[in-house]
Amino acid sequence: MTYCVAMKLDDGIVFLSDSRTNAGVDAVSTFRKMTLFERRNDRVIMMMTSGNLAISQAVKHYLINCKESIWNAENMFEVAELVGEAVRHVYKKDGAILEEFDIKFNVGILLGGQVNGEPMRLFMIYSAGNFIEATDENCFFQIGETKYGKPIIDRVVEPDTSLDEAAKCALISMASTLNSNISVGLPLDLLVYEVDTFKVEKFVHITEENQYFEMISQTWGQRLREVFSEIQNPIWKKHPKNIFEINESPDDNLESLESIKINPPDTWM
Amino acid sequence: MTYCVAMKLDDGIVFLSDSRTNAGVDAVSTFRKMTLFERRNDRVIMMMTSGNLAISQAVKHYLINCKESIWNAENMFEVAELVGEAVRHVYKKDGAILEEFDIKFNVGILLGGQVNGEPMRLFMIYSAGNFIEATDENCFFQIGETKYGKPIIDRVVEPDTSLDEAAKCALISMASTLNSNISVGLPLDLLVYEVDTFKVEKFVHITEENQYFEMISQTWGQRLREVFSEIQNPIWKKHPKNIFEINESPDDNLESLESIKINPPDTWM
Repeated sequence: MTYCVAMKLDDGIVFLSDSRTNAGVDAVSTFRKMTLFERRNDRVIMMMTSGNLAISQAVKHYLINCKESIWNAENMFEVAELVGEAVRHVYKKDGAILEEFDIKFNVGILLGGQVNGEPMRLFMIYSAGNFIEATDENCFFQIGETKYGKPIIDRVVEPDTSLDEAAKCALISMASTLNSNISVGLPLDLLVYEVDTFKVEKFVHITEENQYFEMISQTWGQRLREVFSEIQNPIWKKHPKNIFEINESPDDNLESLESIKINPPDTWM
Repeated sequence: MTYCVAMKLDDGIVFLSDSRTNAGVDAVSTFRKMTLFERRNDRVIMMMTSGNLAISQAVKHYLINCKESIWNAENMFEVAELVGEAVRHVYKKDGAILEEFDIKFNVGILLGGQVNGEPMRLFMIYSAGNFIEATDENCFFQIGETKYGKPIIDRVVEPDTSLDEAAKCALISMASTLNSNISVGLPLDLLVYEVDTFKVEKFVHITEENQYFEMISQTWGQRLREVFSEIQNPIWKKHPKNIFEINESPDDNLESLESIKINPPDTWM
């Protein structure tokens, strides 16, 4: 599988991807999922892919070689349309034969960046080649194994979050995913684009030796356990006295328990 | 959807379920997913179900009414076999017609408890009626929307975790799921069985008015944000000086960035 997340903030865009690809547990390998199209002072376009690797590589190949080029598109919407067309091109070429092999045509793409003359934009492109765009109300997109790492982003990221905080949040989200799902793996690619710069100057390829990511993974796990310990345990009391108590069952919740209870046909007791 | 989690600890078993059922967003309703079979001093058997509601209700109906009764089973393994047989009975009755309507035969069941004469046991039963049993290495099972709430359980719960800590962890796991997925909803049913008691005395039906759950939800979100703020942001430096720094791209990571970069065919710069 894969986990990629992209966040569009007021100050720029954060892109983070893992590099685990697998087709069964005995065919696990490392493929980088991030691509950067950059022409300084003119356009910076980042793309991350999930799903079937053969499809996403074919899409990328088509994009690099097709005549209606990413380099000529007048704005990010046109770029998203080009990527959607590339997906449809691959679907027309490979969809039918994949279906004969019971392989789903499955690809997910996060596409973000800025073309000089308009604001930054971020899109999520589906297997059908159609797409949606991020807004201030929903400023991040995820593809692949998205759920483990979603709660922390939901709680922390808003459009006015700083780029450094957002990068930290993306890394924590990734650390939680790595910890719970072996189909997502190091190394990671982290790219931070600063609005209106039209060049990428913050990029890091994160391996097991990256001390910042190691610090984040360890500290987050440890602090989570500390916070967990600090929260008061439930107290089972018949007569609740403070806000931390839970009613004990034989009293207030007896009726409620009865509603889920099946008694034996012969009443032993 | 649904989210249910069951944990088998040294001291007992914790069962927690939500009650949201939906068939499309305009058919959202509340159905409780926990069932308790209790004959005091003899056996306590808890069951939680996810998946197609018509299937899980049919399974429960069959279990209550079949001759090979849960009340006669000699041990929990036999109970699990009975539940698996109930699933297969419903599959034989409804599977073919459901397929005609393109409805997947989908049901997931968590079954736990204790029959006098043997230790507590916890099983997860699949749509095919087969099942697996929890062990000390894997002491919890989840069904339904399992991923949002898995990271905190992965980090906290071990067989020697106390029942109160485990119940708190289950509630935090549920709070994270509720926060990220609208297909899971209140009220909740929380049941705690204490080993070798052969009766259930700790049960609570948690509605929006439950102050302990409200405290947990709020405190957990707030403390997560605090811990997040306390972790140092990345510092982008050309020459890393301490463990918290990330290399800035034009320096050490330049080569790495080049490997994901597509340059324009005409070299503008």
